Amino acid sequence: MKTIGFACTSADVPLAPLSFERRAPRANDVVMEILYCGVCHSDLHWAKNDWGWTVFPAIPGHEIIGRVIETGTDVTRYKAGDFVAVGCMVDSCQHCDQCRKGEEQLCREGQTGTYGGFDRFTKEHTLGGYSKHLVVREEFVLRVPDGLDLARAAPLLCAGITTYSPLRTWNVGPGSRVGVIGLGGLGHMAVKLASGMGAHVTVLSRTPDKAKDAHALGANALLVSTDPEAMAKAANGFDLIIDTVPVRHDLNPYMPLLDVDGTLVIVGQLGPVDEPNTVPMVLGRRRIAGSPIGGIRQTQEMLDFCAAKNILPDVEMIRMDEINHAFERMERSDVRYRFVIDMASLSL
Amino acid sequence: MKTIGFACTSADVPLAPLSFERRAPRANDVVMEILYCGVCHSDLHWAKNDWGWTVFPAIPGHEIIGRVIETGTDVTRYKAGDFVAVGCMVDSCQHCDQCRKGEEQLCREGQTGTYGGFDRFTKEHTLGGYSKHLVVREEFVLRVPDGLDLARAAPLLCAGITTYSPLRTWNVGPGSRVGVIGLGGLGHMAVKLASGMGAHVTVLSRTPDKAKDAHALGANALLVSTDPEAMAKAANGFDLIIDTVPVRHDLNPYMPLLDVDGTLVIVGQLGPVDEPNTVPMVLGRRRIAGSPIGGIRQTQEMLDFCAAKNILPDVEMIRMDEINHAFERMERSDVRYRFVIDMASLSL
Repeated sequence: MKTIGFACTSADVPLAPLSFERRAPRANDVVMEILYCGVCHSDLHWAKNDWGWTVFPAIPGHEIIGRVIETGTDVTRYKAGDFVAVGCMVDSCQHCDQCRKGEEQLCREGQTGTYGGFDRFTKEHTLGGYSKHLVVREEFVLRVPDGLDLARAAPLLCAGITTYSPLRTWNVGPGSRVGVIGLGGLGHMAVKLASGMGAHVTVLSRTPDKAKDAHALGANALLVSTDPEAMAKAANGFDLIIDTVPVRHDLNPYMPLLDVDGTLVIVGQLGPVDEPNTVPMVLGRRRIAGSPIGGIRQTQEMLDFCAAKNILPDVEMIRMDEINHAFERMERSDVRYRFVIDMASLSL
Repeated sequence: MKTIGFACTSADVPLAPLSFERRAPRANDVVMEILYCGVCHSDLHWAKNDWGWTVFPAIPGHEIIGRVIETGTDVTRYKAGDFVAVGCMVDSCQHCDQCRKGEEQLCREGQTGTYGGFDRFTKEHTLGGYSKHLVVREEFVLRVPDGLDLARAAPLLCAGITTYSPLRTWNVGPGSRVGVIGLGGLGHMAVKLASGMGAHVTVLSRTPDKAKDAHALGANALLVSTDPEAMAKAANGFDLIIDTVPVRHDLNPYMPLLDVDGTLVIVGQLGPVDEPNTVPMVLGRRRIAGSPIGGIRQTQEMLDFCAAKNILPDVEMIRMDEINHAFERMERSDVRYRFVIDMASLSL
């Protein structure tokens, strides 16, 4: 089907409208009209070819809320009119041990990215949610639960699940002591989700000026990481620290904050971090881990959890043609906390 | 009581005999004659003041096998003639949550090192097992199980428990896929212990020339870490990698070897490691951890396990006056795999 999106044709030009074809729906495909798409930091990296493997023309966007307009003949779970969502992946092998466990994000053959991937059948380069329509196999379509605000829900599909998944992996619940480093798109969701799970949540910030924002998001405390006395006093005080900082940084100041068997889990930076000193790790059996998005089952669980707890990202709505300006603002962290594109602003 | 040891009086002189006083036994103390003492890399670091906080005169040694010669009035578990052992610690607060869990090595108030610590009552600097006698409170004395060769058992008290503890923390058992980096005192015990637990054990080595030794110790395979093809083929193949390398090194080549949720646990290096790249950690939910020695209960469990499975370190017996030469050989890794001092060679 003919549709339109906002694409970049090379790393150094702004995104601009592009007409293109979505594949005709296969028997197990859902066709949706995209209503909202969140703007993730990965979108920016992808558009600017920061990772060096962008395929142009590229259409970013993997925090997608839409409405079903058509379904393939074998589709049983969705029908036209349903409100649905798509996150960071649109396919996986479906037969390896990870897929069978519902951990499609860890598929042994590699999951297919919503953008930047390659369709398993046609080998076509996948194009993301900065577009009017999307065609996705049923198994990778999520249901938007009743009561979840469609206009704000989109960032749950990446920022939400990326922080929800480690909170589940490390069994966060009432009584857990959770720290969050970085108060951006991921960080603000980590605070809301951990708080919703009943944890005691502390935002770690280099300056005290985020205290009011942290409390407004549901945090119980703010710890100023540049205050050596406060940091020393907080030693051994955390079971889990979610590190959402998306650039190279030093983990060492945070390690003594972990209690015995505590984990600092990296969800932001993809690349090097400064050299860790193993002393606090060895002496306190502390851990550093990484964590990606969650599987489809867990993503649905997260959406249902957010609906039940009325947890939503704080968003700033933009028009599609404001995306280049939004990228500029993101680069200077000038957004609280996530841009969402209203796709009604994009016409065929 | 008057006794004798081998001490260093500064970082740049060899160890030499020193007569000194052990404290008179308190009601809960066990007095032992030391029969054997293992030579740990930490002993060398301590004698040379490599960590910068050595208190001189210093007597190293924390892999101790002895015979009880006297007990305090309140001692109930041991009597004169019993064969006993002491490891890396001789006291802890005994009332914090970690001590109550039997994790005295993680005592909130800090455990008291067998050497380099400070007695909790007299504040005297503790002196280790390169000596004829030792006085230790009952709770930190281990029983040497019947059938465990006294002359070879000493290294179990540090090299043994340091590798046994993470194998237990990460639930190694039949079917576990365990890698071991570094085939020294700790590494050779990691191979024997993991193998004794029924794991499939692979030694990771930069060259293939350790294959015969690895198999002799019970390893199932040797993986040459400088062979890119072999490393790529081994990706996702390990649940746990025990990294015993005692110097700064690069963890990055090993991370892709871990399966989803797999852990590389550092037990050798205390200090910086090269900067990790987070990509394999984030995309595969892989982890880096540290692990110290185990608690007293676990140390006893390890001794009993080794007796039951007939697991013993490979040792080279030396006289006390050969210690300086042994240190030199250790510095060039010229020992398979641990020196043990026969304390009969030291006379009052």
